[in-house]
Amino acid sequence: MTTPAEARALDADDPLRALRDRFMLPEGIIYLDGNSLGPLPRATMAAGRDMIERQWGERLIRSWDEGWMDSPARIGAKIAPLIGAAPDEVIVADSVSVNLFKLLVAALRHHPTRRTIVTEAGNFPTDLHIAEGAAACVPGGRVHAVAREALDDAIDDRTAIVLLTHVHYKTAERFDMAAWTARVQAAGALMCWDLSHSTGAVQVDLGAADLAVGCGYKFLNGGPGAPAFLFVAGRHQAKLTSPLSGWMGHAAPFGFEDAYRPGAGMERWRVGTPAMLAMQALESGVDLFADIDMADVAAKSARLFDMLAAAGDRAGLECVTPRDPARRGSHIAFRHPHARALIDRLIARGVIGDFRTPDIARFGLTPLFLSHAEVQRAGELIVETVAELAETAHAR
Amino acid sequence: MTTPAEARALDADDPLRALRDRFMLPEGIIYLDGNSLGPLPRATMAAGRDMIERQWGERLIRSWDEGWMDSPARIGAKIAPLIGAAPDEVIVADSVSVNLFKLLVAALRHHPTRRTIVTEAGNFPTDLHIAEGAAACVPGGRVHAVAREALDDAIDDRTAIVLLTHVHYKTAERFDMAAWTARVQAAGALMCWDLSHSTGAVQVDLGAADLAVGCGYKFLNGGPGAPAFLFVAGRHQAKLTSPLSGWMGHAAPFGFEDAYRPGAGMERWRVGTPAMLAMQALESGVDLFADIDMADVAAKSARLFDMLAAAGDRAGLECVTPRDPARRGSHIAFRHPHARALIDRLIARGVIGDFRTPDIARFGLTPLFLSHAEVQRAGELIVETVAELAETAHAR
Repeated sequence: MTTPAEARALDADDPLRALRDRFMLPEGIIYLDGNSLGPLPRATMAAGRDMIERQWGERLIRSWDEGWMDSPARIGAKIAPLIGAAPDEVIVADSVSVNLFKLLVAALRHHPTRRTIVTEAGNFPTDLHIAEGAAACVPGGRVHAVAREALDDAIDDRTAIVLLTHVHYKTAERFDMAAWTARVQAAGALMCWDLSHSTGAVQVDLGAADLAVGCGYKFLNGGPGAPAFLFVAGRHQAKLTSPLSGWMGHAAPFGFEDAYRPGAGMERWRVGTPAMLAMQALESGVDLFADIDMADVAAKSARLFDMLAAAGDRAGLECVTPRDPARRGSHIAFRHPHARALIDRLIARGVIGDFRTPDIARFGLTPLFLSHAEVQRAGELIVETVAELAETAHAR
Repeated sequence: MTTPAEARALDADDPLRALRDRFMLPEGIIYLDGNSLGPLPRATMAAGRDMIERQWGERLIRSWDEGWMDSPARIGAKIAPLIGAAPDEVIVADSVSVNLFKLLVAALRHHPTRRTIVTEAGNFPTDLHIAEGAAACVPGGRVHAVAREALDDAIDDRTAIVLLTHVHYKTAERFDMAAWTARVQAAGALMCWDLSHSTGAVQVDLGAADLAVGCGYKFLNGGPGAPAFLFVAGRHQAKLTSPLSGWMGHAAPFGFEDAYRPGAGMERWRVGTPAMLAMQALESGVDLFADIDMADVAAKSARLFDMLAAAGDRAGLECVTPRDPARRGSHIAFRHPHARALIDRLIARGVIGDFRTPDIARFGLTPLFLSHAEVQRAGELIVETVAELAETAHAR
């Protein structure tokens, strides 16, 4: 295990160390849950006041022409470089679930004959649930969810679209994006990635991918329930249309026409009026990435992971996350029969991780605000707490 | 026309006059656009800081158990008395457009044979667009949009659902809710009301209605793009399920099951994670209504309307809003060949109304914050500005 002195030395050499001061972090807490809800960037406080008191309070409806109406495309363009997309291939709207629904229905309808969505059993539940909901909106639509090792066999000439989550929400296992995109496209299907657990945490390059969605409130630090984003490759944009044909996605929202005409480019994926207070917080979170090299983020994520993995080894925990940095995201998951008690005891000691049913203890490693010293200390506390739990179990 | 002295006397007698101090209103502006974007309640500033700095910044994920997770139902229960619904018949989620989609698809699917949505041509565009999108998700689904005077004839034994906007966004014309609900149900169809332009502005009693949606950012003063609400009558709640089967609407969101099981009651209409910054602002706006008698609101709306209607008469404007208070909402619309120029000139003079294509000048009358003196002055400025426009046209 890393020693406190070694951790301090790593902090002294950390190219990202100045970023920590850009966040408000509660005293006495080691926050290993940035993969569930990213912490508050300091800039968001001032930006939030400006949004509420000046933009809304003083400018009122005039603000729609002073940056609000363009915000979905503007923030999308800022997210694009983090996922290897062009600025005009990403837009911010609604939630991950709603955006997935739009893309899956559109993709199912587009193919002349294929009507199956292939996805992974044990994928994040909303991906599975929304896939079912989308399939039910297209005649003949069906979902085929199989274990990861059976995916390759499940893709066939009925497959319209394959939906995979880049980094798994429980295990942090990461798909090889380029290889799977090529595999799916070779079978004549579209590839849709859910980037919720990877955007802002690991280097993402959508490359040839067709469609994607992603989350604003995890590693992008956009605030609780932040709006989500969606991506449609430029070559598909004119062909696909949203089943959620709302007025803000109309070619002329203020033309007030009775008939729907989809907007140009990514604008057609908007539905209702954007929730500007939430949009502002997301933009402030995304702006933090403007001068960050994602290679530095990925390298620090790997170092932090190794520190907690070593602590897990010392504690005798079963690590279900792959050790190879290229095969995982930016959290670490341990399986433990008393995972919930482990997380509860750690929270009581100021280490916030989370429990995922039935037996997973999950710790997020956000390179933007965590110090090596914090993660070193968290590792020590994990070792101590696991030992305590074993004694308690032994005493029973 | 009302004189300044008469307006001051009306203000002195106004049971709602103290409410004005609960809003931040910019100096030198008479804001007649609360029907488009309600102004900032003062309480929202402190609540917004608490949401960002304490609930998010300090409490982080712990806030989900400290009020966030329950907020959609909690805020819905606060909106319920404003629309004549039971507390467990309303929930807050997504946008008006997304909520309409959910209800229309669910209602179309539920009927064994009927597949037609009847609605009004010239309804607010998103109602028409989303109805088209919803109909396309159900085999045989279609939309039949007809002029108001043809609605009665259009409802027949193929009609599954009738979607009407209670108060028209342009003309402010109001449907007789009880009569139309009875008419539609007598034909064996479900009645769905869009309450966007009526909630918080006029007395609404959904009574026997089946379904409804409504907007948070107009007369509820919930902030730009505030989350919307939806209503399902208790007797239908177990029968209807959402096509947007997201994880937050699951019976056990944190059970992480692969198969979707709809949540109990209104919970099933949730989709993704609620945007808490926007939810907080909506709740602060709705809380303003806690000690308000909607009969006072409606009575003041009628007085303010009469003042602007008299000014319009003096100016020779064509009023397209019905004069009878029971047949209109809380804005007034005038038709004018140079409506856009009229609005632009009034804005330059500090009177903010809005233009709706092609020839409508629209002025919102929000009884919570407008004084009679302000509306009296706005009336004078409308008379002057219309006269100026006539001179300009004459000079051409």
